[in-house]
Amino acid sequence: MAESARLVDLIQADLDKFVDGREQQLLAISPELAPFVNYARDLLGGGKRFRALFCYWGWQATTGLSTSFDPLAEMSTEQHHRNDLESVVLAASGLEMFHAAALVHDDIMDRSDTRRGLPAVHKRFEQLHARGRWIGNSAEFGQSGGLLLGDLLLGWSDELFDEGVRTLSSAQSGLAARAHFNHMRTEVTAGQYLDIHDESAWQHFDEADLLDRAHRVIVYKSAKYSVEAPLAIGAAMGGATDEQLAALRQFGLPLGIAYQLRDDLLGVFGDPSLTGKPAGDDLREGKRTVLIAIARTALATNSRSLLDELLGDPELTDQQVRMLQASIRESGAVENVEGIIAKNVDLARLALVDAPISRAAREQLLILAGAVTQRTA
Amino acid sequence: MAESARLVDLIQADLDKFVDGREQQLLAISPELAPFVNYARDLLGGGKRFRALFCYWGWQATTGLSTSFDPLAEMSTEQHHRNDLESVVLAASGLEMFHAAALVHDDIMDRSDTRRGLPAVHKRFEQLHARGRWIGNSAEFGQSGGLLLGDLLLGWSDELFDEGVRTLSSAQSGLAARAHFNHMRTEVTAGQYLDIHDESAWQHFDEADLLDRAHRVIVYKSAKYSVEAPLAIGAAMGGATDEQLAALRQFGLPLGIAYQLRDDLLGVFGDPSLTGKPAGDDLREGKRTVLIAIARTALATNSRSLLDELLGDPELTDQQVRMLQASIRESGAVENVEGIIAKNVDLARLALVDAPISRAAREQLLILAGAVTQRTA
Repeated sequence: MAESARLVDLIQADLDKFVDGREQQLLAISPELAPFVNYARDLLGGGKRFRALFCYWGWQATTGLSTSFDPLAEMSTEQHHRNDLESVVLAASGLEMFHAAALVHDDIMDRSDTRRGLPAVHKRFEQLHARGRWIGNSAEFGQSGGLLLGDLLLGWSDELFDEGVRTLSSAQSGLAARAHFNHMRTEVTAGQYLDIHDESAWQHFDEADLLDRAHRVIVYKSAKYSVEAPLAIGAAMGGATDEQLAALRQFGLPLGIAYQLRDDLLGVFGDPSLTGKPAGDDLREGKRTVLIAIARTALATNSRSLLDELLGDPELTDQQVRMLQASIRESGAVENVEGIIAKNVDLARLALVDAPISRAAREQLLILAGAVTQRTA
Repeated sequence: MAESARLVDLIQADLDKFVDGREQQLLAISPELAPFVNYARDLLGGGKRFRALFCYWGWQATTGLSTSFDPLAEMSTEQHHRNDLESVVLAASGLEMFHAAALVHDDIMDRSDTRRGLPAVHKRFEQLHARGRWIGNSAEFGQSGGLLLGDLLLGWSDELFDEGVRTLSSAQSGLAARAHFNHMRTEVTAGQYLDIHDESAWQHFDEADLLDRAHRVIVYKSAKYSVEAPLAIGAAMGGATDEQLAALRQFGLPLGIAYQLRDDLLGVFGDPSLTGKPAGDDLREGKRTVLIAIARTALATNSRSLLDELLGDPELTDQQVRMLQASIRESGAVENVEGIIAKNVDLARLALVDAPISRAAREQLLILAGAVTQRTA
């Protein structure tokens, strides 16, 4: 994964450079804007960069050329490709910036207090207010600060992405990539809304529809957004043929589903020291995941009623969390979800077997498939 | 203003067409996404379109050609300009879409219940939750729904704007316009943060700085965003020279300040039947406006303490609102602010006298200057 590791460094360099530039603009307006820059930097300094990696390998899959990343390499016939590399890294950085924005707004909506072991951005603004003994409600100030920082990052993501697709050697490929990006933004927002909608309204749905609904949320909120769309964007930047794009989508969608199912398992059973989130965070939040839908089907009426009653209570005690974890585990839902993950990873791998993409990209995408579905954080 | 009126229709047509397209995409995912489309449509169906008008007249100021808007007109040497017209209308529609997004997020931050006589978007989502007897907290669901719709509109604004600048006959002019747009997004977000920051932390500032601080908020949150930036964006699309851009900025900034000062007066003294907002809305919200800063300086200690105590109390009675209105009026602050408005409008008009811009644009910009500073809503 040397190339992937190097890409992660390039992404970080682009993000840092961008924020440095905006820091100057903001501090020239007022030093009181420093928190925007500091919180943004902390947020952009971490993460697994999966979206950037899928974008990059989607591009590599279709251009088929390997790149040395060596800035001292001689000019060559690969020069064109090398110039495009910078554009692809910029666009991929834009995806990471977009994701940072989404996390800030998500944490407000989910009332999540922590993110990667640090206080969530809205909590940091809340603390700023409380420590300064400012007037008004600290929590409300925190939410407003987070909302604005998220908006700012959304604009910035667009700047980075736009510079990436605009500087691509093929204007047509840049246009195609932007169309995927636009589509992705609308779909992920739709998925997020369906997520909170179903979490609130699930008692009014047919019992038989719950699993399908949880699946739909996964597809739009996560599978397309985290895997399929970044792949498609990268592929489009490489001038993908319809066949290449179709193959990458056939790989990306099931892999994205597996990715989110792993996330759901981590949200209930993850080790807080690794996830940076409290144990059983998703249980307190009341997410109506595929895991929960399957557990409900398998549980006896009494246990199901108890699950329904406790799920979404932000005041759950650690003991109640452990009890719910045990109940879900005993229902067999964990093995069931692990089975679905494995099946989807198989589907994803299968899609690459005869895919008309470069060999190097195929290998790296298979490694990535393992990384995103076997992670512990 | 026939040309301005016609532009407003073109903007509406672009916005409607865009939302129609996204409606198909969203409803194909789920019929439960219909509120997104309905609320967006209501929001985009109103407004004074000042930002679009400044963008358009900024463009006209620099291209200098008059356009008939007649779709049946013969092809002519103006064809190039006519094609650019479509691009300018698209970009201006993007500005209106951006503004709709900002309003949705503003109303969440300001805890405003109404917008243009309708419930604010987050209140509509809240009502959806309450009427459906869904589980969880209706107000929190409403905020999340509003946050997501705002995010969606931000993405959409970018799509419209991008299509506008990308299809411009001069790529260089498009790029310059985008730079102004990017700058504007960062600045308005900074201004909004300083607004809530100063509203919360003002007691910790030097008394002597309060007016300057209120002025700074106006400049970034409103004057640049609502007038100067749209003018600069339009001017850049027309390939403005440095001199043209400087003249339009010299017009736009003081006019934008006057525009916001009028808004501040309306926020305290406006007629609810015209503004679509409750009487004295800004008083309940606790905005630390220039009007308030000036009133505080003029008021006797007792009256000032009472103002400080009541301002920002969301539970103010109508009687208390009337008392505060009377107190502010008696301080002489209203005449003072009216004087500042008049002075800024004069500065703006003066900037146009020798400005190297088209005569038609100069005339229309002068009319617009009157419209934005003498309005009652």
